[in-house]
Amino acid sequence: MPDFSRLALNSATTKKWTLAEAVDGCVRAGIPAIGPWRDIVADAGLDKAARLIKDAGLRVSSLCRGGFLTAADPEGLAAALADNRAAILEAVALGTQELFLVVGGLAPGEKDVVAARRRVSERLEDLVPFAVEHGVRLVLEPLHPMYAADRALISTLGQALDLAAPYAPSAVGVAVDTFHVWWDPELKEQIERAGRERRIASYQVCDFNLPIAADALLSRGMMGDGVIDFATIGTWVRDAGYTGDIEVEIFNQDIWDADGHAVLETMKQRYADLVLPFS
Amino acid sequence: MPDFSRLALNSATTKKWTLAEAVDGCVRAGIPAIGPWRDIVADAGLDKAARLIKDAGLRVSSLCRGGFLTAADPEGLAAALADNRAAILEAVALGTQELFLVVGGLAPGEKDVVAARRRVSERLEDLVPFAVEHGVRLVLEPLHPMYAADRALISTLGQALDLAAPYAPSAVGVAVDTFHVWWDPELKEQIERAGRERRIASYQVCDFNLPIAADALLSRGMMGDGVIDFATIGTWVRDAGYTGDIEVEIFNQDIWDADGHAVLETMKQRYADLVLPFS
Repeated sequence: MPDFSRLALNSATTKKWTLAEAVDGCVRAGIPAIGPWRDIVADAGLDKAARLIKDAGLRVSSLCRGGFLTAADPEGLAAALADNRAAILEAVALGTQELFLVVGGLAPGEKDVVAARRRVSERLEDLVPFAVEHGVRLVLEPLHPMYAADRALISTLGQALDLAAPYAPSAVGVAVDTFHVWWDPELKEQIERAGRERRIASYQVCDFNLPIAADALLSRGMMGDGVIDFATIGTWVRDAGYTGDIEVEIFNQDIWDADGHAVLETMKQRYADLVLPFS
Repeated sequence: MPDFSRLALNSATTKKWTLAEAVDGCVRAGIPAIGPWRDIVADAGLDKAARLIKDAGLRVSSLCRGGFLTAADPEGLAAALADNRAAILEAVALGTQELFLVVGGLAPGEKDVVAARRRVSERLEDLVPFAVEHGVRLVLEPLHPMYAADRALISTLGQALDLAAPYAPSAVGVAVDTFHVWWDPELKEQIERAGRERRIASYQVCDFNLPIAADALLSRGMMGDGVIDFATIGTWVRDAGYTGDIEVEIFNQDIWDADGHAVLETMKQRYADLVLPFS
Protein backbone atom coordinates (compact mmCIF):
# COMPACT_ATOMS: atom_id res chain seq x y z
CA MET A 1 0.00 0.00 0.00
CA PRO A 2 1.61 3.26 -1.11
CA ASP A 3 2.09 6.00 1.45
CA PHE A 4 -0.57 8.62 0.78
CA SER A 5 0.18 10.61 3.93
CA ARG A 6 1.29 13.70 1.99
CA LEU A 7 -1.32 13.57 -0.77
CA ALA A 8 -3.87 16.38 -0.88
CA LEU A 9 -6.87 16.95 -3.11
CA ASN A 10 -7.25 20.48 -4.39
CA SER A 11 -10.99 20.94 -4.71
CA ALA A 12 -10.69 22.35 -8.24
CA THR A 13 -9.88 18.83 -9.43
CA THR A 14 -13.39 17.64 -8.54
CA LYS A 15 -15.10 20.84 -9.54
CA LYS A 16 -18.66 19.57 -9.52
CA TRP A 17 -18.43 18.31 -5.93
CA THR A 18 -19.58 20.38 -2.98
CA LEU A 19 -17.17 20.66 -0.08
CA ALA A 20 -19.10 17.95 1.78
CA GLU A 21 -18.79 15.64 -1.23
CA ALA A 22 -15.08 16.38 -1.62
CA VAL A 23 -14.46 15.74 2.08
CA ASP A 24 -16.38 12.48 1.86
CA GLY A 25 -14.47 11.53 -1.32
CA CYS A 26 -11.13 12.09 0.43
CA VAL A 27 -12.17 10.06 3.46
CA ARG A 28 -13.36 7.16 1.33
CA ALA A 29 -10.17 7.27 -0.78
CA GLY A 30 -7.83 7.57 2.20
CA ILE A 31 -6.56 10.98 1.12
CA PRO A 32 -5.63 12.80 4.32
CA ALA A 33 -5.67 16.46 3.20
CA ILE A 34 -7.76 18.85 1.17
CA GLY A 35 -7.03 22.26 -0.34
CA PRO A 36 -10.42 23.92 -0.86
CA TRP A 37 -11.22 26.86 -3.08
CA ARG A 38 -13.01 29.72 -1.40
CA ASP A 39 -16.16 29.37 -3.48
CA ILE A 40 -17.08 25.95 -2.16
CA VAL A 41 -16.17 27.04 1.35
CA ALA A 42 -18.55 29.98 0.97
CA ASP A 43 -21.24 27.70 -0.45
CA ALA A 44 -20.97 25.47 2.64
CA GLY A 45 -20.67 28.41 5.04
CA LEU A 46 -17.29 29.09 6.65
CA ASP A 47 -17.97 27.68 10.12
CA LYS A 48 -19.72 24.62 8.78
CA ALA A 49 -16.90 24.08 6.25
CA ALA A 50 -14.27 24.19 8.99
CA ARG A 51 -16.30 21.74 11.11
CA LEU A 52 -16.92 19.39 8.17
CA ILE A 53 -13.21 19.11 7.42
CA LYS A 54 -12.17 18.82 11.06
CA ASP A 55 -14.80 16.23 11.93
CA ALA A 56 -13.67 14.13 8.98
CA GLY A 57 -10.13 14.19 10.35
CA LEU A 58 -8.63 15.87 7.27
CA ARG A 59 -5.88 18.47 7.17
CA VAL A 60 -6.32 21.66 5.17
CA SER A 61 -3.27 21.82 2.94
CA SER A 62 -3.97 25.35 1.65
CA LEU A 63 -6.72 27.78 0.77
CA CYS A 64 -7.17 28.88 -2.85
CA ARG A 65 -7.09 31.81 -3.31
CA GLY A 66 -6.56 35.49 -2.64
CA GLY A 67 -4.76 37.88 -4.92
CA PHE A 68 -5.88 39.95 -7.92
CA LEU A 69 -3.97 42.82 -6.43
CA THR A 70 -3.35 44.93 -9.54
CA ALA A 71 -6.35 47.27 -9.52
CA ALA A 72 -5.17 50.79 -10.29
CA ASP A 73 -8.24 52.72 -9.09
CA PRO A 74 -8.94 53.49 -5.41
CA GLU A 75 -12.18 51.47 -5.29
CA GLY A 76 -10.62 48.43 -6.95
CA LEU A 77 -7.62 48.66 -4.67
CA ALA A 78 -9.78 48.90 -1.53
CA ALA A 79 -11.93 45.99 -2.69
CA ALA A 80 -8.83 43.85 -3.32
CA LEU A 81 -7.45 44.58 0.15
CA ALA A 82 -10.80 43.82 1.77
CA ASP A 83 -11.15 40.58 -0.14
CA ASN A 84 -7.65 39.45 0.75
CA ARG A 85 -8.13 40.28 4.43
CA ALA A 86 -11.30 38.19 4.32
CA ALA A 87 -9.34 35.34 2.72
CA ILE A 88 -6.74 35.52 5.50
CA LEU A 89 -9.48 35.19 8.11
CA GLU A 90 -11.00 32.28 6.18
CA ALA A 91 -7.61 30.51 6.21
CA VAL A 92 -7.47 30.99 9.99
CA ALA A 93 -10.99 29.60 10.42
CA LEU A 94 -10.17 26.58 8.28
CA GLY A 95 -6.94 25.92 10.13
CA THR A 96 -4.43 26.32 7.31
CA GLN A 97 -1.38 28.54 7.31
CA GLU A 98 -1.08 28.65 3.51
CA LEU A 99 -3.12 31.17 1.52
CA PHE A 100 -2.44 31.07 -2.22
CA LEU A 101 -2.26 34.39 -4.05
CA VAL A 102 -2.82 34.61 -7.78
CA VAL A 103 -1.59 38.16 -8.02
CA GLY A 104 -3.54 39.44 -11.01
CA GLY A 105 -2.74 40.75 -14.46
CA LEU A 106 -2.99 44.09 -16.20
CA ALA A 107 -5.76 46.49 -15.23
CA PRO A 108 -8.45 46.94 -17.91
CA GLY A 109 -6.87 48.69 -20.89
CA GLU A 110 -3.47 48.84 -19.23
CA LYS A 111 -0.29 47.68 -21.00
CA ASP A 112 2.37 48.67 -18.49
CA VAL A 113 3.53 45.43 -16.88
CA VAL A 114 6.22 47.20 -14.87
CA ALA A 115 3.65 49.46 -13.20
CA ALA A 116 1.21 46.59 -12.61
CA ARG A 117 3.96 44.54 -10.97
CA ARG A 118 4.85 47.50 -8.78
CA ARG A 119 1.25 47.56 -7.54
CA VAL A 120 1.51 43.88 -6.63
CA SER A 121 4.50 44.60 -4.45
CA GLU A 122 2.76 47.61 -2.86
CA ARG A 123 -0.33 45.53 -2.03
CA LEU A 124 1.89 42.86 -0.49
CA GLU A 125 3.32 45.56 1.75
CA ASP A 126 -0.24 46.45 2.75
CA LEU A 127 -1.27 42.85 3.44
CA VAL A 128 1.71 41.20 5.09
CA PRO A 129 1.25 42.74 8.58
CA PHE A 130 -2.38 41.58 8.70
CA ALA A 131 -1.38 38.09 7.53
CA VAL A 132 1.45 37.84 10.06
CA GLU A 133 -0.83 38.99 12.86
CA HIS A 134 -3.14 36.08 12.02
CA GLY A 135 -0.42 33.49 11.50
CA VAL A 136 -1.15 33.07 7.78
CA ARG A 137 1.52 32.85 5.11
CA LEU A 138 0.86 34.55 1.76
CA VAL A 139 1.87 32.06 -0.93
CA LEU A 140 2.95 33.71 -4.17
CA GLU A 141 2.16 31.44 -7.08
CA PRO A 142 3.99 32.01 -10.34
CA LEU A 143 1.57 31.22 -13.16
CA HIS A 144 2.49 30.04 -16.64
CA PRO A 145 3.37 33.04 -18.84
CA MET A 146 0.32 32.38 -21.01
CA TYR A 147 -1.75 33.77 -18.12
CA ALA A 148 0.46 36.81 -17.46
CA ALA A 149 -1.84 39.43 -18.95
CA ASP A 150 -5.08 38.42 -17.30
CA ARG A 151 -4.29 36.35 -14.20
CA ALA A 152 -0.80 36.71 -12.79
CA LEU A 153 2.10 38.95 -13.66
CA ILE A 154 4.33 36.67 -11.61
CA SER A 155 5.55 34.21 -14.24
CA THR A 156 8.64 32.59 -12.75
CA LEU A 157 9.74 31.17 -9.43
CA GLY A 158 12.72 33.52 -9.39
CA GLN A 159 10.42 36.51 -9.75
CA ALA A 160 8.19 35.23 -6.91
CA LEU A 161 11.24 34.80 -4.68
CA ASP A 162 12.41 38.33 -5.48
CA LEU A 163 9.00 39.66 -4.46
CA ALA A 164 9.02 37.59 -1.28
CA ALA A 165 12.55 38.63 -0.32
CA PRO A 166 11.68 41.63 1.90
CA TYR A 167 9.59 39.43 4.22
CA ALA A 168 10.19 36.57 6.62
CA PRO A 169 9.78 33.08 5.12
CA SER A 170 6.94 32.49 7.56
CA ALA A 171 5.13 35.56 6.17
CA VAL A 172 5.53 35.15 2.41
CA GLY A 173 6.21 31.86 0.66
CA VAL A 174 6.08 30.55 -2.89
CA ALA A 175 4.29 27.70 -4.59
CA VAL A 176 5.87 25.26 -7.01
CA ASP A 177 3.14 24.12 -9.39
CA THR A 178 4.55 21.80 -12.02
CA PHE A 179 2.14 22.99 -14.73
CA HIS A 180 3.22 26.60 -14.38
CA VAL A 181 6.98 26.21 -14.03
CA TRP A 182 8.14 23.02 -15.79
CA TRP A 183 9.41 24.94 -18.86
CA ASP A 184 11.59 27.40 -16.90
CA PRO A 185 15.27 27.06 -17.86
CA GLU A 186 16.19 28.31 -14.37
CA LEU A 187 13.86 25.92 -12.53
CA LYS A 188 16.49 23.78 -10.81
CA GLU A 189 18.42 26.77 -9.52
CA GLN A 190 15.30 28.59 -8.36
CA ILE A 191 13.90 25.55 -6.53
CA GLU A 192 17.26 25.21 -4.78
CA ARG A 193 17.12 28.89 -3.91
CA ALA A 194 13.53 28.57 -2.65
CA GLY A 195 14.70 25.76 -0.38
CA ARG A 196 17.67 27.74 0.93
CA GLU A 197 15.40 30.70 1.60
CA ARG A 198 12.81 28.39 3.29
CA ARG A 199 10.03 29.69 1.06
CA ILE A 200 8.47 26.55 -0.44
CA ALA A 201 4.95 26.65 0.97
CA SER A 202 3.29 24.25 -1.44
CA TYR A 203 4.11 21.69 -4.11
CA GLN A 204 1.25 21.23 -6.56
CA VAL A 205 1.30 18.58 -9.24
CA CYS A 206 -0.57 18.13 -12.48
CA ASP A 207 0.55 17.62 -16.05
CA PHE A 208 0.84 20.00 -19.02
CA ASN A 209 -1.34 18.53 -21.75
CA LEU A 210 -0.84 19.00 -25.47
CA PRO A 211 -2.37 20.32 -27.56
CA ILE A 212 -3.25 23.30 -25.37
CA ALA A 213 -7.01 23.18 -24.74
CA ALA A 214 -9.27 25.54 -26.67
CA ASP A 215 -9.89 27.22 -23.32
CA ALA A 216 -6.24 27.60 -22.33
CA LEU A 217 -7.11 27.47 -18.62
CA LEU A 218 -8.18 23.85 -19.00
CA SER A 219 -4.89 22.40 -20.26
CA ARG A 220 -3.95 20.97 -16.88
CA GLY A 221 -3.87 17.20 -17.03
CA MET A 222 -3.66 14.14 -14.80
CA MET A 223 -0.04 13.30 -13.98
CA GLY A 224 1.31 11.11 -16.75
CA ASP A 225 -1.01 12.43 -19.47
CA GLY A 226 1.26 15.28 -20.59
CA VAL A 227 4.88 16.30 -20.98
CA ILE A 228 6.04 16.91 -17.40
CA ASP A 229 8.96 15.03 -15.86
CA PHE A 230 7.73 14.54 -12.27
CA ALA A 231 10.78 12.48 -11.32
CA THR A 232 13.17 15.34 -12.01
CA ILE A 233 11.10 18.19 -10.60
CA GLY A 234 10.01 16.11 -7.60
CA THR A 235 13.62 15.29 -6.82
CA TRP A 236 14.58 18.97 -6.96
CA VAL A 237 11.71 19.87 -4.60
CA ARG A 238 12.59 17.04 -2.21
CA ASP A 239 16.28 17.96 -2.25
CA ALA A 240 15.28 21.54 -1.47
CA GLY A 241 13.91 20.21 1.80
CA TYR A 242 10.18 20.33 1.16
CA THR A 243 8.29 17.82 3.31
CA GLY A 244 4.76 19.28 3.21
CA ASP A 245 1.60 18.25 1.42
CA ILE A 246 1.56 17.51 -2.29
CA GLU A 247 -1.62 18.85 -3.79
CA VAL A 248 -3.21 17.68 -7.01
CA GLU A 249 -4.96 20.55 -8.77
CA ILE A 250 -6.36 19.90 -12.24
CA PHE A 251 -8.61 22.08 -14.39
CA ASN A 252 -9.70 19.78 -17.17
CA GLN A 253 -13.13 19.35 -18.70
CA ASP A 254 -12.84 15.58 -19.17
CA ILE A 255 -11.81 15.13 -15.55
CA TRP A 256 -14.59 17.43 -14.38
CA ASP A 257 -17.08 15.38 -16.41
CA ALA A 258 -15.88 12.08 -14.92
CA ASP A 259 -17.05 10.45 -11.68
CA GLY A 260 -15.24 12.10 -8.77
CA HIS A 261 -14.45 8.87 -6.94
CA ALA A 262 -12.92 7.38 -10.10
CA VAL A 263 -10.84 10.54 -10.54
CA LEU A 264 -9.49 10.14 -7.00
CA GLU A 265 -8.53 6.52 -7.67
CA THR A 266 -6.65 7.49 -10.85
CA MET A 267 -5.02 10.34 -8.99
CA LYS A 268 -3.81 7.99 -6.23
CA GLN A 269 -2.42 5.54 -8.78
CA ARG A 270 -0.57 8.21 -10.75
CA TYR A 271 0.70 9.79 -7.54
CA ALA A 272 2.00 6.41 -6.37
CA ASP A 273 3.68 5.71 -9.71
CA LEU A 274 5.03 9.11 -10.72
CA VAL A 275 5.24 11.43 -7.72
CA LEU A 276 5.66 9.44 -4.50
CA PRO A 277 8.94 7.72 -5.48
CA PHE A 278 10.60 11.13 -5.84
CA SER A 279 9.07 12.84 -2.82
CA MET B 1 4.47 60.31 -44.78
CA PRO B 2 5.86 58.01 -42.09
CA ASP B 3 9.28 56.48 -42.61
CA PHE B 4 8.75 52.87 -43.63
CA SER B 5 12.40 52.27 -44.47
CA ARG B 6 12.85 49.66 -41.71
CA LEU B 7 9.48 47.93 -42.07
CA ALA B 8 9.50 44.32 -43.28
CA LEU B 9 6.69 41.92 -44.08
CA ASN B 10 7.14 38.44 -42.75
CA SER B 11 5.39 36.26 -45.29
CA ALA B 12 3.48 34.34 -42.60
CA THR B 13 1.34 37.46 -42.11
CA THR B 14 -0.14 37.08 -45.59
CA LYS B 15 -0.22 33.32 -45.53
CA LYS B 16 -2.42 32.78 -48.56
CA TRP B 17 -0.17 34.83 -50.84
CA THR B 18 2.48 33.23 -53.01
CA LEU B 19 5.93 34.77 -52.87
CA ALA B 20 5.23 36.66 -56.09
CA GLU B 21 2.03 38.08 -54.61
CA ALA B 22 3.78 39.03 -51.37
CA VAL B 23 6.58 40.74 -53.27
CA ASP B 24 4.05 42.61 -55.38
CA GLY B 25 2.09 43.54 -52.24
CA CYS B 26 5.21 44.99 -50.62
CA VAL B 27 6.11 46.97 -53.71
CA ARG B 28 2.61 48.41 -54.03
CA ALA B 29 2.53 49.28 -50.32
CA GLY B 30 6.00 50.80 -50.24
CA ILE B 31 7.32 48.20 -47.81
CA PRO B 32 11.03 47.81 -48.59
CA ALA B 33 11.81 44.41 -47.08
CA ILE B 34 10.40 40.92 -46.88
CA GLY B 35 11.15 37.96 -44.61
CA PRO B 36 9.93 34.89 -46.47
CA TRP B 37 9.23 31.47 -45.04
CA ARG B 38 10.99 28.61 -46.74
CA ASP B 39 7.79 26.95 -47.97
CA ILE B 40 6.81 29.81 -50.28
CA VAL B 41 10.40 30.12 -51.45
CA ALA B 42 10.36 26.41 -52.33
CA ASP B 43 7.00 26.82 -54.08
CA ALA B 44 8.44 29.57 -56.25
CA GLY B 45 11.74 27.76 -56.77
CA LEU B 46 14.84 29.10 -55.00
CA ASP B 47 16.52 30.83 -57.93
CA LYS B 48 13.30 32.33 -59.20
CA ALA B 49 12.44 33.48 -55.67
CA ALA B 50 15.77 35.22 -55.29
CA ARG B 51 15.33 36.91 -58.67
CA LEU B 52 11.76 37.95 -57.95
CA ILE B 53 12.76 39.70 -54.74
CA LYS B 54 15.88 41.27 -56.21
CA ASP B 55 14.15 42.50 -59.35
CA ALA B 56 11.47 44.12 -57.20
CA GLY B 57 14.18 46.01 -55.34
CA LEU B 58 13.27 44.52 -51.95
CA ARG B 59 15.65 43.54 -49.16
CA VAL B 60 15.37 40.13 -47.54
CA SER B 61 15.16 40.85 -43.82
CA SER B 62 15.46 37.21 -42.73
CA LEU B 63 14.66 33.65 -43.72
CA CYS B 64 12.19 31.64 -41.61
CA ARG B 65 13.22 29.05 -40.57
CA GLY B 66 15.65 26.31 -39.71
CA GLY B 67 15.82 24.52 -36.39
CA PHE B 68 13.97 21.53 -34.94
CA LEU B 69 17.30 20.30 -33.69
CA THR B 70 16.17 18.04 -30.85
CA ALA B 71 15.88 14.66 -32.58
CA ALA B 72 17.45 12.00 -30.39
CA ASP B 73 17.83 9.23 -32.97
CA PRO B 74 20.67 9.13 -35.56
CA GLU B 75 18.36 9.39 -38.59
CA GLY B 76 16.43 12.33 -37.12
CA LEU B 77 19.63 14.04 -36.14
CA ALA B 78 21.14 13.59 -39.62
CA ALA B 79 17.95 14.82 -41.25
CA ALA B 80 17.91 17.93 -39.03
CA LEU B 81 21.51 18.77 -39.89
CA ALA B 82 20.87 18.27 -43.61
CA ASP B 83 17.75 20.44 -43.50
CA ASN B 84 19.53 23.22 -41.64
CA ARG B 85 22.49 23.16 -44.03
CA ALA B 86 19.99 23.47 -46.87
CA ALA B 87 18.37 26.43 -45.09
CA ILE B 88 21.76 28.12 -44.75
CA LEU B 89 22.33 27.77 -48.50
CA GLU B 90 18.85 29.12 -49.18
CA ALA B 91 19.63 32.17 -47.04
CA VAL B 92 22.77 32.74 -49.09
CA ALA B 93 20.86 32.42 -52.36
CA LEU B 94 18.22 34.88 -51.16
CA GLY B 95 20.83 37.37 -49.98
CA THR B 96 20.02 37.49 -46.28
CA GLN B 97 22.42 36.97 -43.42
CA GLU B 98 19.74 36.11 -40.87
CA LEU B 99 18.42 32.56 -40.62
CA PHE B 100 15.84 32.07 -37.89
CA LEU B 101 16.06 28.88 -35.85
CA VAL B 102 13.06 27.54 -33.96
CA VAL B 103 15.06 25.02 -32.03
CA GLY B 104 12.46 22.31 -31.43
CA GLY B 105 10.81 20.73 -28.42
CA LEU B 106 10.89 17.34 -26.77
CA ALA B 107 11.45 14.24 -28.89
CA PRO B 108 8.37 12.00 -29.22
CA GLY B 109 7.62 10.50 -25.80
CA GLU B 110 10.53 12.32 -24.18
CA LYS B 111 10.11 14.33 -20.96
CA ASP B 112 13.70 15.30 -20.22
CA VAL B 113 13.98 19.00 -21.07
CA VAL B 114 17.55 19.19 -19.81
CA ALA B 115 18.68 16.46 -22.22
CA ALA B 116 16.71 17.97 -25.12
CA ARG B 117 18.28 21.37 -24.51
CA ARG B 118 21.71 19.75 -24.44
CA ARG B 119 21.03 18.35 -27.91
CA VAL B 120 20.17 21.85 -29.15
CA SER B 121 23.53 23.11 -28.01
CA GLU B 122 25.31 20.11 -29.59
CA ARG B 123 23.56 20.68 -32.93
CA LEU B 124 24.54 24.35 -32.80
CA GLU B 125 28.14 23.24 -32.42
CA ASP B 126 27.66 21.08 -35.54
CA LEU B 127 26.06 23.85 -37.59
CA VAL B 128 27.95 27.03 -36.71
CA PRO B 129 31.09 26.32 -38.79
CA PHE B 130 28.99 25.70 -41.91
CA ALA B 131 26.96 28.85 -41.29
CA VAL B 132 30.06 30.96 -40.72
CA GLU B 133 31.66 29.58 -43.86
CA HIS B 134 28.64 30.83 -45.81
CA GLY B 135 28.31 34.17 -44.03
CA VAL B 136 24.97 33.32 -42.46
CA ARG B 137 24.05 34.10 -38.85
CA LEU B 138 21.98 31.55 -36.93
CA VAL B 139 19.26 33.50 -35.13
CA LEU B 140 18.04 31.81 -31.96
CA GLU B 141 14.43 32.69 -31.35
CA PRO B 142 13.04 32.28 -27.85
CA LEU B 143 9.43 31.18 -28.19
CA HIS B 144 6.65 31.78 -25.68
CA PRO B 145 6.76 29.08 -22.97
CA MET B 146 3.40 27.75 -24.13
CA TYR B 147 5.29 26.30 -27.11
CA ALA B 148 8.18 24.86 -25.11
CA ALA B 149 7.20 21.20 -25.34
CA ASP B 150 6.49 20.98 -29.04
CA ARG B 151 8.27 23.85 -30.80
CA ALA B 152 11.12 25.48 -28.91
CA LEU B 153 12.81 24.67 -25.64
CA ILE B 154 14.36 28.13 -25.73
CA SER B 155 11.81 30.17 -23.80
CA THR B 156 13.63 33.33 -22.72
CA LEU B 157 16.00 35.83 -24.23
CA GLY B 158 18.47 35.17 -21.40
CA GLN B 159 18.52 31.49 -22.24
CA ALA B 160 19.06 32.25 -25.96
CA LEU B 161 21.97 34.53 -25.08
CA ASP B 162 23.51 31.85 -22.86
CA LEU B 163 23.33 29.39 -25.76
CA ALA B 164 24.82 31.93 -28.16
CA ALA B 165 27.64 32.88 -25.80
CA PRO B 166 30.30 30.44 -27.09
CA TYR B 167 30.09 31.93 -30.62
CA ALA B 168 30.90 35.21 -32.29
CA PRO B 169 27.97 37.67 -32.52
CA SER B 170 28.26 37.45 -36.29
CA ALA B 171 27.75 33.67 -36.11
CA VAL B 172 24.90 33.31 -33.62
CA GLY B 173 22.37 36.02 -32.83
CA VAL B 174 19.02 36.25 -31.10
CA ALA B 175 15.59 37.47 -32.12
CA VAL B 176 13.37 39.70 -30.04
CA ASP B 177 9.78 38.87 -30.95
CA THR B 178 7.36 40.88 -28.84
CA PHE B 179 4.73 38.11 -28.77
CA HIS B 180 7.15 35.60 -27.31
CA VAL B 181 8.96 37.73 -24.74
CA TRP B 182 6.69 40.57 -23.55
CA TRP B 183 5.82 38.78 -20.28
CA ASP B 184 9.44 38.12 -19.21
CA PRO B 185 10.25 39.86 -15.91
CA GLU B 186 13.90 40.06 -17.03
CA LEU B 187 13.14 41.47 -20.47
CA LYS B 188 14.68 44.91 -20.02
CA GLU B 189 17.93 43.53 -18.60
CA GLN B 190 18.20 40.82 -21.24
CA ILE B 191 17.55 43.24 -24.14
CA GLU B 192 20.28 45.48 -22.72
CA ARG B 193 22.56 42.46 -22.48
CA ALA B 194 21.73 41.40 -26.05
CA GLY B 195 22.71 44.89 -27.18
CA ARG B 196 25.99 44.87 -25.25
CA GLU B 197 26.79 41.45 -26.67
CA ARG B 198 25.83 42.63 -30.20
CA ARG B 199 23.45 39.72 -30.68
CA ILE B 200 20.15 41.34 -31.71
CA ALA B 201 19.66 39.99 -35.22
CA SER B 202 15.96 40.72 -35.60
CA TYR B 203 13.14 42.65 -33.99
CA GLN B 204 9.75 41.16 -34.79
CA VAL B 205 6.52 42.82 -33.78
CA CYS B 206 2.99 41.58 -33.35
CA ASP B 207 0.55 41.67 -30.47
CA PHE B 208 -0.50 39.07 -27.89
CA ASN B 209 -4.25 38.67 -28.26
CA LEU B 210 -6.63 37.61 -25.52
CA PRO B 211 -8.33 35.29 -25.11
CA ILE B 212 -5.70 32.85 -26.39
CA ALA B 213 -7.01 31.39 -29.66
CA ALA B 214 -8.45 27.86 -29.65
CA ASP B 215 -5.41 26.95 -31.75
CA ALA B 216 -2.80 28.52 -29.48
CA LEU B 217 -0.44 29.11 -32.41
CA LEU B 218 -2.86 31.65 -33.86
CA SER B 219 -2.98 34.09 -30.94
CA ARG B 220 -0.62 36.54 -32.59
CA GLY B 221 -2.40 39.78 -33.35
CA MET B 222 -2.02 43.03 -35.26
CA MET B 223 -0.11 45.59 -33.21
CA GLY B 224 -2.60 47.42 -31.02
CA ASP B 225 -5.14 44.60 -30.83
CA GLY B 226 -3.65 42.92 -27.75
CA VAL B 227 -1.81 43.62 -24.51
CA ILE B 228 1.72 44.49 -25.64
CA ASP B 229 3.38 47.78 -24.80
CA PHE B 230 5.31 48.50 -28.01
CA ALA B 231 6.51 51.87 -26.75
CA THR B 232 8.40 50.36 -23.83
CA ILE B 233 9.81 47.30 -25.58
CA GLY B 234 10.64 49.29 -28.70
CA THR B 235 12.53 51.84 -26.64
CA TRP B 236 14.55 49.09 -24.94
CA VAL B 237 15.42 47.56 -28.33
CA ARG B 238 16.36 50.96 -29.78
CA ASP B 239 18.46 51.84 -26.73
CA ALA B 240 20.22 48.50 -27.09
CA GLY B 241 21.48 49.79 -30.45
CA TYR B 242 19.33 47.83 -32.87
CA THR B 243 18.95 49.63 -36.20
CA GLY B 244 17.91 46.77 -38.48
CA ASP B 245 14.62 45.76 -40.05
CA ILE B 246 11.44 45.49 -38.02
CA GLU B 247 9.44 42.55 -39.22
CA VAL B 248 5.73 42.06 -38.77
CA GLU B 249 4.89 38.38 -38.36
CA ILE B 250 1.31 37.48 -37.49
CA PHE B 251 -0.36 34.07 -37.38
CA ASN B 252 -4.04 34.88 -37.08
CA GLN B 253 -6.96 33.31 -38.87
CA ASP B 254 -8.92 36.58 -39.26
CA ILE B 255 -5.89 38.29 -40.77
CA TRP B 256 -5.22 35.33 -43.05
CA ASP B 257 -8.85 35.47 -44.21
CA ALA B 258 -8.68 39.19 -44.97
CA ASP B 259 -7.49 40.83 -48.22
CA GLY B 260 -3.69 40.93 -48.18
CA HIS B 261 -3.42 44.49 -49.47
CA ALA B 262 -5.78 45.70 -46.76
CA VAL B 263 -3.72 43.85 -44.14
CA LEU B 264 -0.59 45.65 -45.36
CA GLU B 265 -2.31 49.03 -45.09
CA THR B 266 -3.43 48.30 -41.51
CA MET B 267 0.04 47.05 -40.71
CA LYS B 268 1.63 50.27 -42.01
CA GLN B 269 -0.79 52.38 -40.00
CA ARG B 270 -0.22 50.48 -36.77
CA TYR B 271 3.52 50.47 -37.36
CA ALA B 272 3.48 54.23 -37.89
CA ASP B 273 1.39 54.80 -34.76
CA LEU B 274 2.79 52.27 -32.31
CA VAL B 275 6.23 51.10 -33.40
CA LEU B 276 7.96 53.76 -35.50
CA PRO B 277 7.93 56.50 -32.82
CA PHE B 278 9.98 54.25 -30.54
CA SER B 279 12.35 52.79 -33.11
